[in-house]
Amino acid sequence: MAKVAIMGHGVVGSGAAELLIDHAATIEKRANEQLEVKRILDLRSFPGLSYSDKFTTNFEDIVSDPEITIVAEVMGGLHPAYEFVSRCLAAGKSVVTSNKELVAMKGAELLALAKAHGVSFLFEASVGGGIPVLHPMTQCLAANSFSQISGILNGTTNFILTKMIREQMSFDDALKLAQQLGYAERNPAADVEGLDACRKICILASIAFGKHIYPDSVHTEGITKITLADVDYAADYGCVIKLLGHAEQTADGRTAALVAPFLVRRDNPLSVVDDVFNAIMVTGDATGDVLFYGKGAGKLPTASAVVSDMIECAKHPGGMIYPAWEDGTAADAADAGKQAFPRYVRCAGVSADDLKAFGDVTVLHRDGGAGELAFVTASMDGDTLETALASVVAAGGHVLGCIRVAAF
Amino acid sequence: MAKVAIMGHGVVGSGAAELLIDHAATIEKRANEQLEVKRILDLRSFPGLSYSDKFTTNFEDIVSDPEITIVAEVMGGLHPAYEFVSRCLAAGKSVVTSNKELVAMKGAELLALAKAHGVSFLFEASVGGGIPVLHPMTQCLAANSFSQISGILNGTTNFILTKMIREQMSFDDALKLAQQLGYAERNPAADVEGLDACRKICILASIAFGKHIYPDSVHTEGITKITLADVDYAADYGCVIKLLGHAEQTADGRTAALVAPFLVRRDNPLSVVDDVFNAIMVTGDATGDVLFYGKGAGKLPTASAVVSDMIECAKHPGGMIYPAWEDGTAADAADAGKQAFPRYVRCAGVSADDLKAFGDVTVLHRDGGAGELAFVTASMDGDTLETALASVVAAGGHVLGCIRVAAF
Repeated sequence: MAKVAIMGHGVVGSGAAELLIDHAATIEKRANEQLEVKRILDLRSFPGLSYSDKFTTNFEDIVSDPEITIVAEVMGGLHPAYEFVSRCLAAGKSVVTSNKELVAMKGAELLALAKAHGVSFLFEASVGGGIPVLHPMTQCLAANSFSQISGILNGTTNFILTKMIREQMSFDDALKLAQQLGYAERNPAADVEGLDACRKICILASIAFGKHIYPDSVHTEGITKITLADVDYAADYGCVIKLLGHAEQTADGRTAALVAPFLVRRDNPLSVVDDVFNAIMVTGDATGDVLFYGKGAGKLPTASAVVSDMIECAKHPGGMIYPAWEDGTAADAADAGKQAFPRYVRCAGVSADDLKAFGDVTVLHRDGGAGELAFVTASMDGDTLETALASVVAAGGHVLGCIRVAAF
Repeated sequence: MAKVAIMGHGVVGSGAAELLIDHAATIEKRANEQLEVKRILDLRSFPGLSYSDKFTTNFEDIVSDPEITIVAEVMGGLHPAYEFVSRCLAAGKSVVTSNKELVAMKGAELLALAKAHGVSFLFEASVGGGIPVLHPMTQCLAANSFSQISGILNGTTNFILTKMIREQMSFDDALKLAQQLGYAERNPAADVEGLDACRKICILASIAFGKHIYPDSVHTEGITKITLADVDYAADYGCVIKLLGHAEQTADGRTAALVAPFLVRRDNPLSVVDDVFNAIMVTGDATGDVLFYGKGAGKLPTASAVVSDMIECAKHPGGMIYPAWEDGTAADAADAGKQAFPRYVRCAGVSADDLKAFGDVTVLHRDGGAGELAFVTASMDGDTLETALASVVAAGGHVLGCIRVAAF
């Protein structure tokens, strides 16, 4: 029997406890041993629960208990999660986590610590909630070299965009609805400004390319500037607007990672991923595109990934870690903000004659688009785009919107 | 260093050899040791290759060589693959295979043999080619109980149906094109009659529900009776026609598995899986629907899964097998042919008044459908359907087509 602890009894932690208790027989069969929850760390008490005797407010009750060999960290936030996880690994306990901030900021260090102590550090739940993606990338696709990853990594923004596209709801109304439904926080910045997706693309890029990519080296844009006019023009171009995390290897071996809204063509499988669903598309040189789709968040989907990682820990007492993922520096990251993509541009106060700096463009149409001019350019890098956008202003016009077009 | 052998140097075998040689450095990093191809079994010789010295026509050179610890079986067919794989496992060698016929017919026996000898028997490549699905189901979704699996499991038939739907090509013309492009065999029966998909749903159902489901207990229909009229009526109902493998647990704990064409609603993610792509949707009680999508066949995608399994074998010298999958009997399988589904029916020579036996129906429309009557029923089981279809004949009409509607 393996004794396990859960740090944090919020949405995911309570889900993990429920699964470990309700699915005990199935889990024992799959882990080849029983997983017994011995301790749950939370500052609150939960007197009504069948397992309320397991709670502690003292982290030392977990880290100092030699019987506990597997710990799930589902508190979220960088501190004290980082200190707690480090101490558990150093004490020879395997750790699994759903904490994307922790992994995006400290992944390389914690993987090295786990390796040094012969234990596992797993975090399938940190990307895509219940969708299997990190294990498949490192195991089933291990014979591949990866060239790029693109994903719809944040369910809240995808829900908002879906409402804008399908029901012509404004951004503000769609955000309010997402908050009413519990999909968005009262302060929605981490979702709508792209920070949550940024942490996830860091983890995916680090796994795929072997060097830790830190959030501050990822060009990150949110969806707050997207309007229904953009949605309509995108439709005229056979596209929907999606917030994507995207990472690829540059020719010189660096990683270019960004989070930004993209126009995505309707024949791209990512275009049909709607509502709170997530999907991650990974391109390997042998397999081509492989896509993983499912619920990217929520109590039981995320808890399912946490508990499955705990089962993996039990099956690998000698430690199982994802493959070599070394620490990275700023030099390993390319400036993805300036990377070349075709661009969608919407502007006013100019005529087609004023657009020479954009090269050949495809002009788009929508009902009620009077006084506007929207078009898609060929692939152009950030500097060329800046110059061209400046020419619009110089001609007395102004730029209303500018969005990348997914060429992948 | 692990020495490995490949049995069969056809499409997949030569792909596996190429990956093992071309990606040697990456593979060594991921396996924590070098994988060196020592022997390749094939009756033919391949004098022009850089590794032509490794060929043998004698299986004994592999099974009797104690240095060889991992063997890939990519010959296909039941014999002699079954005998060769059995002897390799009994000799203490781990075996990976892409051979769906072998696994669908002998999986339980070979898993038990692997377990008895402390070695691995892995077959990720047998379902969905390069798409990771078996490992994710058994690892990342290990905290789930599965309720059902549905998949587009055969690329050839999906290509044909895509041509019929998108380009109004007839079945015969689409099949001919598939043959010209090398997607379909000259004798296409295994694909178009559903046998290939049948073997794959057997493997998926066995993994999901823990009892071996044999092909002869799976109700199997192909796509040869699908017409462009059916495609048009389906579109009027907001659906596309897809050949699905589907398996679910019945209330009494048996497995109902079938392969058949289905009308699939356009908001179902399986509806947008086109051309030769495959997708498998797995429903877990914690995660909900999870979908895996990619190339379901082809040299390098399938070889990628074979080689990734070889890496797993190298990482688990003590043997790694999928979880408990016991042998099954006919009593474990429900008669899925009679399972209740809504039905699409197309008939001629009757009026709406003759349809009372079908209950309330939704009548469908298409251009040029004169003299026909097509409709969708509520969910009805096989016996009720037979009775209702007989009433059409009794009224002097005849039944032109009858297809299940995916209610999942």
